[in-house]
Amino acid sequence: MTFHVVDLIRTKRDGGRLSDDAVDWLVDSYTAGAVADEQMAAFLMAVVWRGMAPGELSRWTAAMVASGDRLDLAGVGRPTVDKHSTGGVGDKVSLILVPLVAACGAAVPQLSGRGLGHTGGTLDKMEAISGWRASVSPERMRSVLRDVGGVIAAAGPGLAPADRKLYALRDVTGTVESIPLIASSIMSKKIAEGTSALVLDVKVGSGAFMTAHADARTLAETMVTLGEAAGVRTEALLTGMDTPLGWTAGHALEVAEAVDTLCGGGPADLIEITVALARRMLALVGLDGGADPADVLAAGTAYPVWRRMVAAQGGDPDAALPTAEHVEIVSASASGFLHGLDARAVGVAAWRLGAGRSRKEDPVSVTAGVRWLARPGEWVAGGAPLLELHTDDLSRLPSALEALVTAVEIADTPPPVRPLVRDRIHL
Amino acid sequence: MTFHVVDLIRTKRDGGRLSDDAVDWLVDSYTAGAVADEQMAAFLMAVVWRGMAPGELSRWTAAMVASGDRLDLAGVGRPTVDKHSTGGVGDKVSLILVPLVAACGAAVPQLSGRGLGHTGGTLDKMEAISGWRASVSPERMRSVLRDVGGVIAAAGPGLAPADRKLYALRDVTGTVESIPLIASSIMSKKIAEGTSALVLDVKVGSGAFMTAHADARTLAETMVTLGEAAGVRTEALLTGMDTPLGWTAGHALEVAEAVDTLCGGGPADLIEITVALARRMLALVGLDGGADPADVLAAGTAYPVWRRMVAAQGGDPDAALPTAEHVEIVSASASGFLHGLDARAVGVAAWRLGAGRSRKEDPVSVTAGVRWLARPGEWVAGGAPLLELHTDDLSRLPSALEALVTAVEIADTPPPVRPLVRDRIHL
Repeated sequence: MTFHVVDLIRTKRDGGRLSDDAVDWLVDSYTAGAVADEQMAAFLMAVVWRGMAPGELSRWTAAMVASGDRLDLAGVGRPTVDKHSTGGVGDKVSLILVPLVAACGAAVPQLSGRGLGHTGGTLDKMEAISGWRASVSPERMRSVLRDVGGVIAAAGPGLAPADRKLYALRDVTGTVESIPLIASSIMSKKIAEGTSALVLDVKVGSGAFMTAHADARTLAETMVTLGEAAGVRTEALLTGMDTPLGWTAGHALEVAEAVDTLCGGGPADLIEITVALARRMLALVGLDGGADPADVLAAGTAYPVWRRMVAAQGGDPDAALPTAEHVEIVSASASGFLHGLDARAVGVAAWRLGAGRSRKEDPVSVTAGVRWLARPGEWVAGGAPLLELHTDDLSRLPSALEALVTAVEIADTPPPVRPLVRDRIHL
Repeated sequence: MTFHVVDLIRTKRDGGRLSDDAVDWLVDSYTAGAVADEQMAAFLMAVVWRGMAPGELSRWTAAMVASGDRLDLAGVGRPTVDKHSTGGVGDKVSLILVPLVAACGAAVPQLSGRGLGHTGGTLDKMEAISGWRASVSPERMRSVLRDVGGVIAAAGPGLAPADRKLYALRDVTGTVESIPLIASSIMSKKIAEGTSALVLDVKVGSGAFMTAHADARTLAETMVTLGEAAGVRTEALLTGMDTPLGWTAGHALEVAEAVDTLCGGGPADLIEITVALARRMLALVGLDGGADPADVLAAGTAYPVWRRMVAAQGGDPDAALPTAEHVEIVSASASGFLHGLDARAVGVAAWRLGAGRSRKEDPVSVTAGVRWLARPGEWVAGGAPLLELHTDDLSRLPSALEALVTAVEIADTPPPVRPLVRDRIHL
């Protein structure tokens, strides 16, 4: 069937719903270049305005998946399960979780992205490892999943090309902030990667894309519904992102922290969230009867899997991680309990120190970042070191410091303790 | 000042108002090509959604005017006043009104457009006259206004180029139907043409762009406010467009009808609306103390002005008008009072017979059109001729007839009489 694109734009603009055929035609025609960018931009803004009906959004997502190849992971010999995080500060969970869940018997086919804005991307972190390459062919991916159990790699150009094109358009047209568009973008890639199950880590708080609990919940519910509609067993955890995770934000700094955690060390909050996600992933594929991920992690059993994963993509797990030329210390201004360490401010500071990019073609500095020497709830002594700012470029320091001006809150009494996992969303 | 276009799109998307500097920057940057079509398309859809604040819209309109030249008509030696119609079926008012108001002492600098869709454009009608050319230089326009008092011509490329570009973009992105965007498009061209006063004929009814009275009123109020804000004395008449005007729809057919009216004949409804508009135009420039336009029209005094206007643009006022090769007669299906003759249906039929265009680059047939032999309120005898369909291409007849299937309503009692001028909007 053929349609007039202006009619479809008008339908959405006036609050209507596109037919399945119309959705297929629009996504296909846009991907093929027959619908112009300006027409899709107007349509996307109409979606920001009017939303999409659940069935319409499932079809839209399916059309994005169908615009490219869907990986066939049937032959890897283990149940496949993946995790996706909506992005946080200091979020190095994937680096630990993928080898951990692989060590527990599943295969984790994590196709990931790069960071944009104040949140870091998993691929950028992995590239701090000498020799490691993000690009993996589907054949190689299947063999590593079979042999090692975990892959962290870049999504190839054949995976949901419609999403690739739409994402770039949304970025320049003010149409990023839409729950149906965010949900379909994420889920089209995860469905196309061929995983049989998926756990979503939907972040909520100052450092997250969704700062309000209700919005994060709606996003989670929308994604879970899309995953299940596509035959992927899907659930979501809503997790707090007011404070950055662990002790560091920055690529090489976070790899070091992940390795420490894989060897049985690591910060409590990072372990808590990683284990919670691992348990749900294993439950979704029926592997929850085996060893508990908390024990596996504490025993260091996932670390050899990590080494094999890194080596499988050319990385040297024994190579020293690069370090920044300059480390600037910020001291506590007063004594007291550390009440808050604002995740967004820390993310912006790390970004400005060189860890982040403003445009997707910008390079990143793998050594830049922030380390904090106390976590909320801890006592700090006035004048004692509180933050380390790592950078190779001292000219970046002033703007990074500016981002941190109101990031730290010190008070006389300890702050209330909030659980990191706030909610679980499933059908 | 410089801005990030995505920030401005987001501001409008979230219901905010752009600053004056931001409006200027956006219009200028788009006209210059520094803001991409897809970005402006998203912005325009956000305007369809959120609207514009009155001051924001005035500035937007002023920026469109400032994107090109504003004609200086100070030297024409007569007060300048123009009319703009939002478009109706059989609307040949300009052809009569321009020489009529010129005959009453004003100068009418009418820069006009071509038809798109089911309503005819004034330039297309004038081009039915042998030798007549729509293109006139600003110098020539001033001298004809001085000597003759009236010009009907095409707007040159230097007049509000931002509107030209925006209009083409709106056409392909489903962003035509927005009162602020319609109002600013019309008013930017009228302000740029340099007229000191303007009367708007805002059509309401089945054959008009605005089918609801409330929408037409809002459009009229918005345009009057924009005109006054730019220093153009502006008011609007809301006039009915459920029934087509006069006896004909089609370019050459309408020219003949206009000439007949200028010579003291013509249909009552056409005379009524033309005189009402002429009186308001003359009042706005202080010429309402002279001869009444009704008397001038009846006396045929405007006809010599018409002849001079036509000749000034190369037209031969004595040349016979072209006629269609085929005239198909549609007879009345029953005897009774003609209750309705649907303006939109007649417009669509004339369009399909060859008078209209689907794309702005399409040619039109000047001979094609529809003549009706009875007007609503008149008695018709079953089997007597009711409509003439004029075309050079018989293959166009079936689709034209199809448009007319439900256009005619015949009943036992006469229909209620409604005044043609429904309302007057002024500050």
